[in-house]
Amino acid sequence: MRFFSDNAAAVCPQVMDAIAAANTLDTAYDGDALSQQLDQRFSELFATRVRVLWVPTGTAANCLALTAMCPPHGGILCHREAHIQVDEGGAPEFYTHGAKLLLLDGEGAKLEAATIDGYCSAIRDDVHQVQPHAISITNASEYGRVYTPDEVAAIGRVATRRKLGLHMDGARFANAVAHLGCSPAEATWKAGVDALSFGFVKNGGMNAEALIFFNSEIAAAAPYRRKRAGLLASKGRFLAAQLLAMLEDDVWLDNARAANAGAAELAAAAGERLMHPVEANELFLRLTAEEAAALREQGFDFYDWGTGAARFVTAWDQSEADIRPLAQAIATL
Amino acid sequence: MRFFSDNAAAVCPQVMDAIAAANTLDTAYDGDALSQQLDQRFSELFATRVRVLWVPTGTAANCLALTAMCPPHGGILCHREAHIQVDEGGAPEFYTHGAKLLLLDGEGAKLEAATIDGYCSAIRDDVHQVQPHAISITNASEYGRVYTPDEVAAIGRVATRRKLGLHMDGARFANAVAHLGCSPAEATWKAGVDALSFGFVKNGGMNAEALIFFNSEIAAAAPYRRKRAGLLASKGRFLAAQLLAMLEDDVWLDNARAANAGAAELAAAAGERLMHPVEANELFLRLTAEEAAALREQGFDFYDWGTGAARFVTAWDQSEADIRPLAQAIATL
Amino acid sequence: MRFFSDNAAAVCPQVMDAIAAANTLDTAYDGDALSQQLDQRFSELFATRVRVLWVPTGTAANCLALTAMCPPHGGILCHREAHIQVDEGGAPEFYTHGAKLLLLDGEGAKLEAATIDGYCSAIRDDVHQVQPHAISITNASEYGRVYTPDEVAAIGRVATRRKLGLHMDGARFANAVAHLGCSPAEATWKAGVDALSFGFVKNGGMNAEALIFFNSEIAAAAPYRRKRAGLLASKGRFLAAQLLAMLEDDVWLDNARAANAGAAELAAAAGERLMHPVEANELFLRLTAEEAAALREQGFDFYDWGTGAARFVTAWDQSEADIRPLAQAIATL
Amino acid sequence: MRFFSDNAAAVCPQVMDAIAAANTLDTAYDGDALSQQLDQRFSELFATRVRVLWVPTGTAANCLALTAMCPPHGGILCHREAHIQVDEGGAPEFYTHGAKLLLLDGEGAKLEAATIDGYCSAIRDDVHQVQPHAISITNASEYGRVYTPDEVAAIGRVATRRKLGLHMDGARFANAVAHLGCSPAEATWKAGVDALSFGFVKNGGMNAEALIFFNSEIAAAAPYRRKRAGLLASKGRFLAAQLLAMLEDDVWLDNARAANAGAAELAAAAGERLMHPVEANELFLRLTAEEAAALREQGFDFYDWGTGAARFVTAWDQSEADIRPLAQAIATL
Repeated sequence: MRFFSDNAAAVCPQVMDAIAAANTLDTAYDGDALSQQLDQRFSELFATRVRVLWVPTGTAANCLALTAMCPPHGGILCHREAHIQVDEGGAPEFYTHGAKLLLLDGEGAKLEAATIDGYCSAIRDDVHQVQPHAISITNASEYGRVYTPDEVAAIGRVATRRKLGLHMDGARFANAVAHLGCSPAEATWKAGVDALSFGFVKNGGMNAEALIFFNSEIAAAAPYRRKRAGLLASKGRFLAAQLLAMLEDDVWLDNARAANAGAAELAAAAGERLMHPVEANELFLRLTAEEAAALREQGFDFYDWGTGAARFVTAWDQSEADIRPLAQAIATL
Repeated sequence: MRFFSDNAAAVCPQVMDAIAAANTLDTAYDGDALSQQLDQRFSELFATRVRVLWVPTGTAANCLALTAMCPPHGGILCHREAHIQVDEGGAPEFYTHGAKLLLLDGEGAKLEAATIDGYCSAIRDDVHQVQPHAISITNASEYGRVYTPDEVAAIGRVATRRKLGLHMDGARFANAVAHLGCSPAEATWKAGVDALSFGFVKNGGMNAEALIFFNSEIAAAAPYRRKRAGLLASKGRFLAAQLLAMLEDDVWLDNARAANAGAAELAAAAGERLMHPVEANELFLRLTAEEAAALREQGFDFYDWGTGAARFVTAWDQSEADIRPLAQAIATL
Repeated sequence: MRFFSDNAAAVCPQVMDAIAAANTLDTAYDGDALSQQLDQRFSELFATRVRVLWVPTGTAANCLALTAMCPPHGGILCHREAHIQVDEGGAPEFYTHGAKLLLLDGEGAKLEAATIDGYCSAIRDDVHQVQPHAISITNASEYGRVYTPDEVAAIGRVATRRKLGLHMDGARFANAVAHLGCSPAEATWKAGVDALSFGFVKNGGMNAEALIFFNSEIAAAAPYRRKRAGLLASKGRFLAAQLLAMLEDDVWLDNARAANAGAAELAAAAGERLMHPVEANELFLRLTAEEAAALREQGFDFYDWGTGAARFVTAWDQSEADIRPLAQAIATL
Repeated sequence: MRFFSDNAAAVCPQVMDAIAAANTLDTAYDGDALSQQLDQRFSELFATRVRVLWVPTGTAANCLALTAMCPPHGGILCHREAHIQVDEGGAPEFYTHGAKLLLLDGEGAKLEAATIDGYCSAIRDDVHQVQPHAISITNASEYGRVYTPDEVAAIGRVATRRKLGLHMDGARFANAVAHLGCSPAEATWKAGVDALSFGFVKNGGMNAEALIFFNSEIAAAAPYRRKRAGLLASKGRFLAAQLLAMLEDDVWLDNARAANAGAAELAAAAGERLMHPVEANELFLRLTAEEAAALREQGFDFYDWGTGAARFVTAWDQSEADIRPLAQAIATL
């Protein structure tokens, strides 16, 4: 009864099958037939011409996106609790050669356009202060909150006006789209997003994420940087196969809907305990140490979130039968 | 009839099975039961206590090893044609933050202890010149040549005397050991090697390589650097499973022997055309453009190697039936 | 009537004379007789064996110190308003290859030992979070506040217990020592400081600062890094001469006392307007826009400090005749 | 009787006077009246609009130029014996974040256009190989050889065709121009040079070099990088003063002519011993160990250059009376 992370979820059968099917002779690196289909298939999904790179981790996707937008001497505006700031072991600084993360506040780990704009206005345009070059937002956010297309678009307008790149960390992008019911296009490039880290691993994949560039200019050097970072798998077909399998028949969306549904059921049970509205597949609950212990005694596995709180994450592979026991246990605390 | 790269080889059945078996609930990152076995299992193989990290590519393994040995202001001695110099898109410079590769000559892309020693002697010990901090050798080399334990040990003694780290790029370490018939220990730490990039992908793996540290001190920061480089897969069990499957029953060694045997058969057919003795699974042949075209017309796929030469690589998955046609075609050129 | 920065102060006559006297034949870089005296002379001043490097700027001194303490994947604890965070254009990230500045709060831009300790306790010791490796404090602080030896020693004990390096940004170290009346040793290594950026330029120098290492181990690579950063002047004797001239007869201390005295006179006039106690040569005053305009109309030059506040800095070259008009103008606002 | 380096030369009186005159109240960093004149004055000298930054060392000038032309993942074509490769302690790799120096051969440490072109043609345009982005040539070269405007222009055409930046390391640019008798414009931007490190320190300056950008686009980020590298002196007026003093009345050119004249006199005396034609202020002579010892016994100070050779450098401050004794001593060996 695992609720500590969707990273621990199983790989979905479509991906397992695709990996098995990819075990045939083919060209090395990303010259294979599967890798060569990615641009086309994701362009269809996003209804615009995109450039796609597979990478082994979400951190790698985020960092390759950021370094395409921000020079070493620049700054990247992000939420104080953004994954790139608190959970990636300094990877953004490594990839960007020391760009500075400029930390902003916002409810639910979401940024607002006005906050970004105000922060930028307060930076003197001189060489003593690091100048912002990019914005990174997470959708769904670190607290499971979802940006609406309008909210993203407002940020996109600030980005355009101030000549900042706009990156979306979509480790749970599928969950966000499943919640919004909008098209992937509306959630991204139509709202001004230049690059998207499109997460698959938490959602049924094995070890491939997609880095999507909506702006071909900033994409140009990314293949060189991917190789230079030691990310270019020599049997890339096994990564491409995963992404293609999840695009087929909207597996990515179905999986995300399943995870969101589980979270919604838990949310209904949690009631007043909820610290944030539940929009994707994460729940943050007020729980005393005794309550947490009681749940763990019943076999539920989850993370404490500071003192008096806990995080629960649902995944695509949890059926109603997996969810209900926890829902009941929470309701009867 | 593919002979252009062992990167294009299939994944062996033991690895495919292990991946399927790993698709069960487990902890994220490298906290899972399989990843936790790696130190123990590789320690048994090397008959000494080692620290092991899975990584997705050989380039990543090489670079994490080098950055554990060489500070940003240092230099790394390697062969002029080493993979880290000519084929990794500048990854060593990225990971080490700009350490300089110091390029030496040597027959068959192998370095000799005396060459290294002489080169170091010519460097003034002042701040104007980059000072060497590490040596990197490739075994089997870029021309398929194998270092004997004695040759490595001679280099190891220079390294010890000059306080240099010693790294072995073992993208084809299995082929080298299969050729030597020695123990993995003799080929590495007993000869002074501090870290080994132990390749599995070219030899039947899918997307996991092993970085082996024989020196626990330099290993200490490597897990932090692996995360910082975006290499820490969130479902690491699927990488660990591959390595464990290939250690089991010496699959790694059997696969390498098969590849070497294929190369030996081709070498016998090539005779005077050979540019280097064939010790592992690579052959470099003198071939005119016409001869190369003739082979390609018969369906054989391989790389030109400059003008008048070509490279052929055999792999674990090529049976005698795959090899013989090429052997005959070469013999009858 | 300049009060906007001590960077704009004149070079003191002792330094000008020393520069003229240094214009004789000598060895290049830091092989000259003057540079070779630095270790000895500063060791006398600090009553312990120190290793000293001249550098052209305080930013360079700070960054060479930090990179000697913190690896690229580490973190540096500092105040949210520290010069290294807000005024050096990302130089610490450049020199350290992307180490992360971990930002703490504290009154008057000073850190307290307990704050540091608590912050460290909250960091999980895993690869996902950047681990702290060093502490940087500024003495006198960015608000002109001075750390007592006891306060530094408390921080030094946290540093020792947690195995963190301790750096002191002493752009205005002379002003701090002048205020404290203690020995340079008490303010630094006796309290656990490992490296000190000892500022001279704001205090009568021209373009030489001293980077002092109290810990010879971390000093070892600094000369290589100084060269690698393009900081090794080819006529280093002109930098060494400045430092030696200011050590002679305690010019550094007399100059700082003069600057502090000016600030004290202004502080007495400012009374309730003071936002921070005045301990060194900086004053931060509450001033309405109208009051600021009135002072400027009288010819006084200073910086606004956000809204409703202003910063005034005194320097060694301002006599009582220079100070009194401003003191009177403030008093009669 | 110093002939080991022009770095050891004295500072010329015009520069000393200008430094003394600059010791008046002024704005900090590069906001002062002197720094603000640089663009204008150098634009007049080069007969085109240039952007100029003072920096404390030639290494800093070279590296800021290179990082303006070459991304971290790119390569810089230079001579195998270029100063940036062998004498800057890895500074180019530091500033560029690990760009790779691609080493070419050429007589007298000069590159030829055809060599560059051929080298580039041999690089595969794929992500595995580092792609060239810039060329760096040294004028006068490390062996005191001078590029004619036509030679530079041929290289400039290769640069333009291949979209490479072209940097000139002009540590001894003044000596080159003095030899050529051409205008500074002909030697640089008219021949395709994008950025010039214009050396002053070896030629009578104290601690200021000029970095000249002929291409405003690549200059845009340089001020940010200068600050980020800790090179932005807070009393920049003392650096600007040096450069302006040497432009006044062509002091830079007169000084270089004097140094070249000394070298020419020595060259005439050296005859068959010369290893390279003498075009600037450096001589490389065949000298046995005994002959070198004999000269040293007479008080002449110079560097050995490997075995059986020695380097002599003349400077602006050596009169005929300084030169003649050495000329005679060489002639009578």
